[in-house]
Amino acid sequence: MGGDYGPSVAVPAALKCLALHPELSLVLVGDQVKIEPYLTGQAESLRNRLEVFHTEISVDNATKPESVLRKYKNSSMYIAVDLVKEKRVDACVSAGNTGALLMTGRHLLKTIPGISKPAIIASIPASTTNRRCYILDVGANINCDARQLLEFAVMGSVLASSLNNTTAPRIGLLNIGHEEHKGTEQIKLAAQLLEKSAALNYIGFVEGNEIFGDKVDVVVCDGFAGNVTIKTSAGVVHVIENLLEESATRTWLTRLYYLIASPLLRSLKSQINPARFNGASLLGLQGIIVKSHGNALIEGFYYAIEQAIKEVSDGVPDLISRKMSDFLGEADTIDELAT
Amino acid sequence: MGGDYGPSVAVPAALKCLALHPELSLVLVGDQVKIEPYLTGQAESLRNRLEVFHTEISVDNATKPESVLRKYKNSSMYIAVDLVKEKRVDACVSAGNTGALLMTGRHLLKTIPGISKPAIIASIPASTTNRRCYILDVGANINCDARQLLEFAVMGSVLASSLNNTTAPRIGLLNIGHEEHKGTEQIKLAAQLLEKSAALNYIGFVEGNEIFGDKVDVVVCDGFAGNVTIKTSAGVVHVIENLLEESATRTWLTRLYYLIASPLLRSLKSQINPARFNGASLLGLQGIIVKSHGNALIEGFYYAIEQAIKEVSDGVPDLISRKMSDFLGEADTIDELAT
Repeated sequence: MGGDYGPSVAVPAALKCLALHPELSLVLVGDQVKIEPYLTGQAESLRNRLEVFHTEISVDNATKPESVLRKYKNSSMYIAVDLVKEKRVDACVSAGNTGALLMTGRHLLKTIPGISKPAIIASIPASTTNRRCYILDVGANINCDARQLLEFAVMGSVLASSLNNTTAPRIGLLNIGHEEHKGTEQIKLAAQLLEKSAALNYIGFVEGNEIFGDKVDVVVCDGFAGNVTIKTSAGVVHVIENLLEESATRTWLTRLYYLIASPLLRSLKSQINPARFNGASLLGLQGIIVKSHGNALIEGFYYAIEQAIKEVSDGVPDLISRKMSDFLGEADTIDELAT
Repeated sequence: MGGDYGPSVAVPAALKCLALHPELSLVLVGDQVKIEPYLTGQAESLRNRLEVFHTEISVDNATKPESVLRKYKNSSMYIAVDLVKEKRVDACVSAGNTGALLMTGRHLLKTIPGISKPAIIASIPASTTNRRCYILDVGANINCDARQLLEFAVMGSVLASSLNNTTAPRIGLLNIGHEEHKGTEQIKLAAQLLEKSAALNYIGFVEGNEIFGDKVDVVVCDGFAGNVTIKTSAGVVHVIENLLEESATRTWLTRLYYLIASPLLRSLKSQINPARFNGASLLGLQGIIVKSHGNALIEGFYYAIEQAIKEVSDGVPDLISRKMSDFLGEADTIDELAT
């Protein structure tokens, strides 16, 4: 029910995913009256693997996160996360209120031992390859201490290994320079912790412009810096698309150029297509929740479901839990440094 | 002597500026032996207005900012800033070590009454117009309290009025959402201060993706977020340029498209050309210092000098000083709120 388009995006995306994954079953949690119109006329082979869990109540973007736990226990969001908790489903995908989703996830699923708070991880196109660069946190935690930044590094490393199919993903700490005296106290402390960790492939500080080269796989930062980074990137891409279209339509000659070069420009656009990079995971919980961007269209929502499928098949929460326990052995050192 | 290219960039940029501004005189502070080769054969009309202030000593990027005040009083950077202090020149432009330049500027020129610390302001292309969007701080102050953010708003507003020729520039506070509960405590407090200030055209919180639309003229943030924002923007532009060139040269057909559409693509590139946006001002000092990017080429350094000229002719430090004294009247309220 969430996001700007509700069932008109979520249901077609679900059907697309079912068609591509014969082993997949999906539960749509929401208002049956609003969902059904998008299901009429669908093949029996898809409809068989699709269950509708009816509820008329839903959380909207104006709902205060705190109130979900008190007043919205019958909402589609709460029920969907509860289905994960009850192990009736393997993962939840939502385009709804991020704060409410985080609060519900944390309340129902609890964090993995060793993880203080869940983080939101987003991915952005990196370089010219299909590889993604992961960045966390992008908005769940505004102020982070060194210990949390270390947890982000562990979680990001696990997710990047799983989704990028790489071993030992390169982890960088977002900073305003490479020199060791740069950055906040917590970032400098986190750098010391990361340097000591044999289990992580820490490469040092990275600056904003280095995220997009083929230099780093996981960028660790607090939720404020991460949020600014992903939104700024999206803004720049958008303004360049506009510039291109405006210059293209200025005169009959530029219109002609644009027409001739359109296959080239289409290819460029598809490479920077944000839909392919939709799907932010709520990491650190004992269960899988993927957040689709509120303004994602069918293709974007489809990629968010794909991401959930991959996380389920790799067992991401278990992988994080195992990697965290490697670190709990180092806990003395961490607490010593972090105080 | 500063930046990646020293006199090979600074001297030709200076000559270009002299040629375009018949009323301009410049002093080149640095090693005469390294400067002279770029001056030979230049017209007498330019050479007449160019003085070389010789010193063999210079500050490099590895020099610790603190040591400049103790050990580098004969360096080109220290001398250049001192010439501003002694009113023998109206402004200083440097491509050198930013930390050292800030420290020297603050030590010799002092801050304007009411300004706690200087800030670095950068500008980025906004929308499809020639208008710039100003962002501060971009690296001088990592942790900022509400009072400093307010000072940034005042200074940014003055500079944007001067350089963009606009009255009442629109000021936004960089945040991770528009809702008033979003952001750090200091950001929320700064929002309250800005809302009360009749002298500023405060429009509210802005998100990373909104910087590039035609929505805001001055974006206020701490130096960490600002630094990440400008570097991320540059990184995205760079990766899109690469994507375009790589897709263009992939097959003979795409090469042909590229060739035909090249006037269009060149126009796009020139619109996002970072050289045009070079020149970050150190605002809040009782004198004008413009920092050119270390990797700027002749065109970029030329724009940094142009920016200094504009700030001199508008008397930016005096304008800031006057606008700040409007605020000193409100000081009680500010201190009350800020504690």
